[in-house]
Amino acid sequence: MPETIPADSVGLVSPTNLHIDMPITLECGRSLLRYDLVYETYGKLNKEASNAVLICHALSGDHHAAGYHDKDDKKPGWWDTAIGPGKAIDTNHFYVVCLNNIGGCKGSTGPTSINPETDKIYGPDFPIVTVTDWVNTQAILADYLNIKQWAAVVGGSLGGMQAMQWAISFPDRLQHCLMIAAAPKLSAQNIAFNEVARTAIKSDPNFHEGHYTEHQTIPRQGLGLARMLGHITYLSDQAMGEKFGRELRNDSIHYGYDVDFQIESYLRYQSETFVEHFDANTYLLMTKALDYFDPAKQYDHDLAKTLSTIQAKCLVVSFTSDWRFSPERSHEIVNALLSSEKEVIYAEIEAHQGHDAFLMPIPRYHQIFKTYMQRVAADCELT
Amino acid sequence: MPETIPADSVGLVSPTNLHIDMPITLECGRSLLRYDLVYETYGKLNKEASNAVLICHALSGDHHAAGYHDKDDKKPGWWDTAIGPGKAIDTNHFYVVCLNNIGGCKGSTGPTSINPETDKIYGPDFPIVTVTDWVNTQAILADYLNIKQWAAVVGGSLGGMQAMQWAISFPDRLQHCLMIAAAPKLSAQNIAFNEVARTAIKSDPNFHEGHYTEHQTIPRQGLGLARMLGHITYLSDQAMGEKFGRELRNDSIHYGYDVDFQIESYLRYQSETFVEHFDANTYLLMTKALDYFDPAKQYDHDLAKTLSTIQAKCLVVSFTSDWRFSPERSHEIVNALLSSEKEVIYAEIEAHQGHDAFLMPIPRYHQIFKTYMQRVAADCELT
Repeated sequence: MPETIPADSVGLVSPTNLHIDMPITLECGRSLLRYDLVYETYGKLNKEASNAVLICHALSGDHHAAGYHDKDDKKPGWWDTAIGPGKAIDTNHFYVVCLNNIGGCKGSTGPTSINPETDKIYGPDFPIVTVTDWVNTQAILADYLNIKQWAAVVGGSLGGMQAMQWAISFPDRLQHCLMIAAAPKLSAQNIAFNEVARTAIKSDPNFHEGHYTEHQTIPRQGLGLARMLGHITYLSDQAMGEKFGRELRNDSIHYGYDVDFQIESYLRYQSETFVEHFDANTYLLMTKALDYFDPAKQYDHDLAKTLSTIQAKCLVVSFTSDWRFSPERSHEIVNALLSSEKEVIYAEIEAHQGHDAFLMPIPRYHQIFKTYMQRVAADCELT
Repeated sequence: MPETIPADSVGLVSPTNLHIDMPITLECGRSLLRYDLVYETYGKLNKEASNAVLICHALSGDHHAAGYHDKDDKKPGWWDTAIGPGKAIDTNHFYVVCLNNIGGCKGSTGPTSINPETDKIYGPDFPIVTVTDWVNTQAILADYLNIKQWAAVVGGSLGGMQAMQWAISFPDRLQHCLMIAAAPKLSAQNIAFNEVARTAIKSDPNFHEGHYTEHQTIPRQGLGLARMLGHITYLSDQAMGEKFGRELRNDSIHYGYDVDFQIESYLRYQSETFVEHFDANTYLLMTKALDYFDPAKQYDHDLAKTLSTIQAKCLVVSFTSDWRFSPERSHEIVNALLSSEKEVIYAEIEAHQGHDAFLMPIPRYHQIFKTYMQRVAADCELT
């Protein structure tokens, strides 16, 4: 943490654990007898419970979206640039909720948790979870918090898919839906990248068909490869070029297989740090949830029809250099919303940072984000 | 092979092995005491030796560019669509030469060859080779064939880089230089993908630091992963979408980690067949040759200056959906050629097949290719 907490930070925060003692049936047909949801909140819920905003996290995200857990933390939560007093999601107005999705590895029940039916950790036996399952468990948390309707559900990337699913599954439980750097479903190329990542993890000899914990090991190489590959797809070619170019790590190339270029060194470092704090089975689950997300499938592959029953007003944001979920993918969402005469505002942000742009405090992006959230506040009569 | 050989095929062909008993010093400083070059030729060299065309192969290519080795072959050489009587590179006019580059695994000396200094196979001890080394050995083959000057040097992708290097290294030894789907150097993103591929190979427990042959194994998983990843970068998102979309392999998703989507099945199949006939150490060498290619580095990173001494007339071709070496990369080459007042024709082909388009008989592409080669024939007074 910086020596003094910045004035626009939500400050020191701590997660809450909610134990749910009611079984839930998942989309795959299997059930969880009981489970934990770990979440954080920032700001205060008003009397009418009308100022609640749900943040949905992406592949490697968690419930720690803003502020600091400890005064020694080097970094704040993953979306600290967007959440805090005076920020786009202004905690002076909003009560912000973010939970670790089930299947995750940061506290909510997932592959690293104990399976109550066997008293052993789930590991690879944890059921496949989907975006719909996450939205259902988020709704259970909302019930617990007495939030009948969210002022807004907000997410980027896989989080944006959850926001979309909220609008479809619970049309009257959110006023606004913010889908940032998202897509209505993965493309074949997106699935292909996920399949390479999964193959890397599963073919690591330390994977042991997912039972690596029993073998007191982790599939470091495979998970590291998956993360390296992920990183390439999160950044644009231009952003990588600007950040690393063809800079050599040392003065000259050395005609061998050690690191020559800075970009190699960066990827190796990123993957080494990631594998220490992320679970491989969770990574597999997250990529499958991405692959399976396709809400229009049940509506004759007609996205307009799929979105025809939503009641939320929408903000859709894309970034010009995002090639993972390109602006064209956001256009699909916007066009479907317009076809079914929904209220939608669309912003295509000129940005060179690629998919990762959604996490960054790009002035024009945050200006639009903030203006929109001010409108949300006005809609909810918070101001 | 089809039941009857098509009339526009070069027919049955067989490779020739040229043993070179003169040491060659490589760019990395190491030498090969002696080595073999395996090559194929199609058409006839004329008396003046003025009708020779050199084909340079890409990462996983080899000397077998056209025709059939055996009447039972299912497929012809890798660029059969472009080489043959009446085709773009018309063997009625041209004498076509294609060799397996050193470091390869299809006959020319490489990691799978016996090291004459140890009488054991080279394996990982084979020296790092560069595009310049390849061009130098190709020039040695030209000397042997009594070809003082190529009518044209032609290549796609990494092959296009060799064509460029020819024009730089031996300005008076080629009349025309055809650089197709190439780039003047890799971007940070290109290098990043190569680094992931290398990491996959090197972290396979069957890699044994490159000594897998002594361990009577091959790093199947790692090389397979590298190939899967390569395939994603060779195809465009659109081409993958058209070919596979989100088609399920069976009727429904099965909430597990086996293959759900056709694209997964395709990638797995591609990688499984590839690993049976390609050497992992060669794959590593080829990716390093790509990473290191940067001819402008010795000219203050000024590509125009780098190309200022070339004498060849140039054709540069790019494909709109190629995101590995995008049209912008070809523009860099074209702009540099124009700045130094070289003769260049540029064609940007509307194609949805991605980088792989350079291997495909896209009508407009082949029409331009053929027209250009007719001009080459006219220049060499072959017609």
